[in-house]
Amino acid sequence: MNFLWKFRPSWMVLVRTPSDWYMVPMFAERVDQIKPFVVMEVLARAAELEEEGHRVVHFEVGEPDFPTAEPIVAAGRDALSAGRTKYTQATGIPELRRTISDYYSGLGVSVDPERIIVTPGASGGLVLLAGLLLDPGNELLITDPGYPCNEVFAMLAGGVPKRVAVTANNRFQPLANDLFDAWSDSSRGALLASPTNPTGTMLDPEVLAEIAKGLKARGGFLILDEIYQGLVSSPPYRSGLEIVDDLFVLNSFSKYFGMTGWRLGWNVVPDDAVDYMTHLAMNLFISPSTPAQYAALAAFEPAAMAIHEERARVFRERAEVLAEGLRDLGFTIPVMPDGAFYLYVDISHTGMDSTDFCWKLLNEYQVAITPGEDFGNHLQERFVRFAYTTDEDSIRLGLERIADALDELA
Amino acid sequence: MNFLWKFRPSWMVLVRTPSDWYMVPMFAERVDQIKPFVVMEVLARAAELEEEGHRVVHFEVGEPDFPTAEPIVAAGRDALSAGRTKYTQATGIPELRRTISDYYSGLGVSVDPERIIVTPGASGGLVLLAGLLLDPGNELLITDPGYPCNEVFAMLAGGVPKRVAVTANNRFQPLANDLFDAWSDSSRGALLASPTNPTGTMLDPEVLAEIAKGLKARGGFLILDEIYQGLVSSPPYRSGLEIVDDLFVLNSFSKYFGMTGWRLGWNVVPDDAVDYMTHLAMNLFISPSTPAQYAALAAFEPAAMAIHEERARVFRERAEVLAEGLRDLGFTIPVMPDGAFYLYVDISHTGMDSTDFCWKLLNEYQVAITPGEDFGNHLQERFVRFAYTTDEDSIRLGLERIADALDELA
Repeated sequence: MNFLWKFRPSWMVLVRTPSDWYMVPMFAERVDQIKPFVVMEVLARAAELEEEGHRVVHFEVGEPDFPTAEPIVAAGRDALSAGRTKYTQATGIPELRRTISDYYSGLGVSVDPERIIVTPGASGGLVLLAGLLLDPGNELLITDPGYPCNEVFAMLAGGVPKRVAVTANNRFQPLANDLFDAWSDSSRGALLASPTNPTGTMLDPEVLAEIAKGLKARGGFLILDEIYQGLVSSPPYRSGLEIVDDLFVLNSFSKYFGMTGWRLGWNVVPDDAVDYMTHLAMNLFISPSTPAQYAALAAFEPAAMAIHEERARVFRERAEVLAEGLRDLGFTIPVMPDGAFYLYVDISHTGMDSTDFCWKLLNEYQVAITPGEDFGNHLQERFVRFAYTTDEDSIRLGLERIADALDELA
Repeated sequence: MNFLWKFRPSWMVLVRTPSDWYMVPMFAERVDQIKPFVVMEVLARAAELEEEGHRVVHFEVGEPDFPTAEPIVAAGRDALSAGRTKYTQATGIPELRRTISDYYSGLGVSVDPERIIVTPGASGGLVLLAGLLLDPGNELLITDPGYPCNEVFAMLAGGVPKRVAVTANNRFQPLANDLFDAWSDSSRGALLASPTNPTGTMLDPEVLAEIAKGLKARGGFLILDEIYQGLVSSPPYRSGLEIVDDLFVLNSFSKYFGMTGWRLGWNVVPDDAVDYMTHLAMNLFISPSTPAQYAALAAFEPAAMAIHEERARVFRERAEVLAEGLRDLGFTIPVMPDGAFYLYVDISHTGMDSTDFCWKLLNEYQVAITPGEDFGNHLQERFVRFAYTTDEDSIRLGLERIADALDELA
């Protein structure tokens, strides 16, 4: 096994036996394939600059800048005062599952509470789905660009993520044939997002139906990430469940509901999967956070919903301001997002590689953005992601600084 | 692939191609190997009986009956009021990592805060360690009896749990040779607990050292589950890290610190593993619960520590009361626990199988206990687990009811 030493950067251990010696890897193979996000280095460097007294404009953070809405926070405090600190049912308290079901009813989709699995964040939901759906060696089709962690959930279960390039021509979403062409005997299913991170675009409803049908014919599953649900102005559908009933849906209290640090999300799964998901959740998590679950009940009440809606409106306004400003500076935004809080921006007119451009903007102009390389390999050197999770004044200041940077480059 | 249909209970999907038709499994193979815990059925039946108006004595619950200590709850409320609702660093806020490091210092063990990874419960810690350490096909040695979820974490990563029987002769802990004899070319490491669930016994310090040394010589890792740390009256060591520095330690705020529903734990890992664990945590969790982390800071303050210590004392008293009562009734308790809050009790004098005995006690006498089958296969039909997570009055009532049951059986 000595040759492995050359190809695997993770630590190797020398093992001696009476007759032989050999090297064995200290860690699992997958850890060599997981690279840290550049955005983490960007965040660390931004913090340094702030400690030095600089004002940094933050376009890099994939988290709403608003605190959790006060009615939710108050419900969290009340839950603690009421002693809501013990384990709950593995799949969430029945009240919350019913409340989420009612939320879907309000969107015009009927979802039995039994099919709703409350999870420790959408992250926890992806751990469960990977455990449910992927055997070692199974391929999971994902998009490039896409949410960078998706690969790691597949790898956790021994699965193999397979990137399918998506382009601006099709609003950074796959066509059905893109997936079917990528399908192999090892493929087990696909994980798509609507809207996506980093592009904010939704999957066309007819394409969604076609993909679901084609995957089903191949014995495959379809996971649809809807964690930006609600942050869309005029969606062609409110949930993919309107179009395909037996989807695996991933959702979260982090984005529209503004509860990032509470770590709460949910899955909707087909009836047949409920028992297996329950067994997995019981073993892998015991239960989701109890105070977070009780707080989340308040997230659906009118007072909180009014706050969420107002914030969604603010995000849409910021999208316009930022997009207009960037276009005025010569950037290309090939596709305006349907929702979420990201613009995926082509910076090739700067003549720079996107990662170099990000570091230059941060180090010299104190503007933090995320380079395309965090989201995949496809044309990543031309793209950056701007998150408009900062107020309009900061957006305008950021645009001024970028203008200065472009003047210098010109 | 049609033959699979016979052997795999999970749903199969019929796939047709122009030239052929075949069946493919809908779910990953591991889900067929995960059986729900009997204790979950016991809990559900107990709840039914309570709804019918019965008073049930609960010896089945692996969770302290005390609420989270008030200073921690107050700190949680304060954290919410202060807007501690956003993501934190993936491995936990630096203050908490330092505080945990100081806690180890107080126990006489030096642990750099960098080596401490704060996790979403010990469950989250096991997800990370499985991801870090197990490639598909790798064996993880575990004890039988042992914590039933351990197998599922190994399977999540495609690993293969391998049970090593432990017996009362050696206080339900393995000897070094038990592990070395079970070791194969596919083995990658072992996961042991000290104290254990369901037996509450600690691993002998010399055996721990011998096991660690022998595994290292085989290029293997050792994970030590210390989630019941603190719930031991006179431990031979406060942490296995006193004896072996490069252990992977699993710990939790759930048991001694009484924070079950908050879902917070931590790992201590060797220096070499820190970066990989950080990358995994970043991808798989984003961050642990923020309000829980700030609340946990208060768990180490004198006011809260005094409460934890008092509760640990109460658990020890209950152990005596329950053990004496059960012995008076003719039960064999081959080994008294060093800590935790469990008695592993031999019920063979009843002439019944342990699972049948549990159901009889519950249905006819409203006493809930957990059968041995939830913890493994080795002599499981003779053993049950009593959790003394209920007050002394209830313990005495439970003993009376069990006496009645034995009278009926006699």
